[in-house]
Amino acid sequence: MSDTLQLVPGNSLITATAEEGRQLAIKLSRLIIKATQPDAALRERLRPIYAEDAAMLIAIGQTVATEFATIAAANNYWR
Amino acid sequence: MSDTLQLVPGNSLITATAEEGRQLAIKLSRLIIKATQPDAALRERLRPIYAEDAAMLIAIGQTVATEFATIAAANNYWR
Amino acid sequence: MSDTLQLVPGNSLITATAEEGRQLAIKLSRLIIKATQPDAALRERLRPIYAEDAAMLIAIGQTVATEFATIAAANNYWR
Amino acid sequence: MSDTLQLVPGNSLITATAEEGRQLAIKLSRLIIKATQPDAALRERLRPIYAEDAAMLIAIGQTVATEFATIAAANNYWR
Amino acid sequence: MSDTLQLVPGNSLITATAEEGRQLAIKLSRLIIKATQPDAALRERLRPIYAEDAAMLIAIGQTVATEFATIAAANNYWR
Amino acid sequence: MSDTLQLVPGNSLITATAEEGRQLAIKLSRLIIKATQPDAALRERLRPIYAEDAAMLIAIGQTVATEFATIAAANNYWR
Repeated sequence: MSDTLQLVPGNSLITATAEEGRQLAIKLSRLIIKATQPDAALRERLRPIYAEDAAMLIAIGQTVATEFATIAAANNYWR
Repeated sequence: MSDTLQLVPGNSLITATAEEGRQLAIKLSRLIIKATQPDAALRERLRPIYAEDAAMLIAIGQTVATEFATIAAANNYWR
Repeated sequence: MSDTLQLVPGNSLITATAEEGRQLAIKLSRLIIKATQPDAALRERLRPIYAEDAAMLIAIGQTVATEFATIAAANNYWR
Repeated sequence: MSDTLQLVPGNSLITATAEEGRQLAIKLSRLIIKATQPDAALRERLRPIYAEDAAMLIAIGQTVATEFATIAAANNYWR
Repeated sequence: MSDTLQLVPGNSLITATAEEGRQLAIKLSRLIIKATQPDAALRERLRPIYAEDAAMLIAIGQTVATEFATIAAANNYWR
Repeated sequence: MSDTLQLVPGNSLITATAEEGRQLAIKLSRLIIKATQPDAALRERLRPIYAEDAAMLIAIGQTVATEFATIAAANNYWR
């Protein structure tokens, strides 16, 4: 893990809207991949592999859904 | 991620019924795939791959179940 | 997704018993597969593939467990 | 799904102890496999496949963990 | 499942510390594998398979994380 | 599992910020791998395997998301 990589943009799970919560969920999931594989060139080579693979796209969706569950609870579901 | 793609239709997790909650869960899971792979033609080529593969259909079901858990909690389970 | 397919039988997560909650969890998970792959003949061809594959049977169990967690919470665990 | 198969033994998630809760989690996960593949002889043939495969044993553990989370919440964690 | 195998050491989810909670999560996940595959010699043969396989190590981590979520909730997060 | 390996740094799930919570989630998930495979040289050989594999990077993200859900709840989401 890079010591300087920020893992939570704005250091908060609180967002104004559900839409922004969803965007944050995507960012959180991408930042873990960045922390695990800090080499930007290598990540760039991996990108078409998962973005063109149906099973990996589904798996990304599962991860974002899990991140979003936490963010939604943090925001009391924007009720 | 496309900056203009709306990730949460209506920008709310609140739905009138459980049925609509389930429809929203399906939409949320599809919109993450759309955000990760914005190329519509490529997504169209992937569609028969996952829609005719038993393991991928099950994995889609798992993702929708996770999205629905959040939506159901947001709606206090439509009790 | 078929516009006319009902995704939540009875449009409610509330069931009289845990047993009925479990049956509902199975139904919910199957209806997502039906929504994703509306072709009945194709689903019929896929059925022996997952019903005779140990890994897929386990994955179906994982999905049902996730659906059931939501239904059980909705019913306050039938306490 | 067999109409007569009982999916929740005793039709209750409440158990006297955490140990019994864990046993119930195992039973619930097995009964979903039984409901999905009602043919006992076929299930018997599948058994060595998953019981001797490291990845499938881990996947079974994941499913039981998810079932147990629900049972534990139902029992207020036997506190 | 062995009738005599104890699935929850001490028959309780309550631990003094988060560290002990984590140890319990590891034990719970291993005991499910033991219950599913009671043959010690066979489990021993499987051990290097998963302990030297990156994907399986990650999957074990996922299972332990799920068990730990339950234990942490049971202990009110040791707050 | 090594008896002396500390599985929860600081023996607490409480962190000052969401950012630190995220760092803890990464650490917890790595320490389970360390507990399961105590051989440092072997773990080092596995590292490029998962860090250069798109599917494994996604799976790591799923595990960290699950650990983070627990940590975030423990900290009342840093609200």
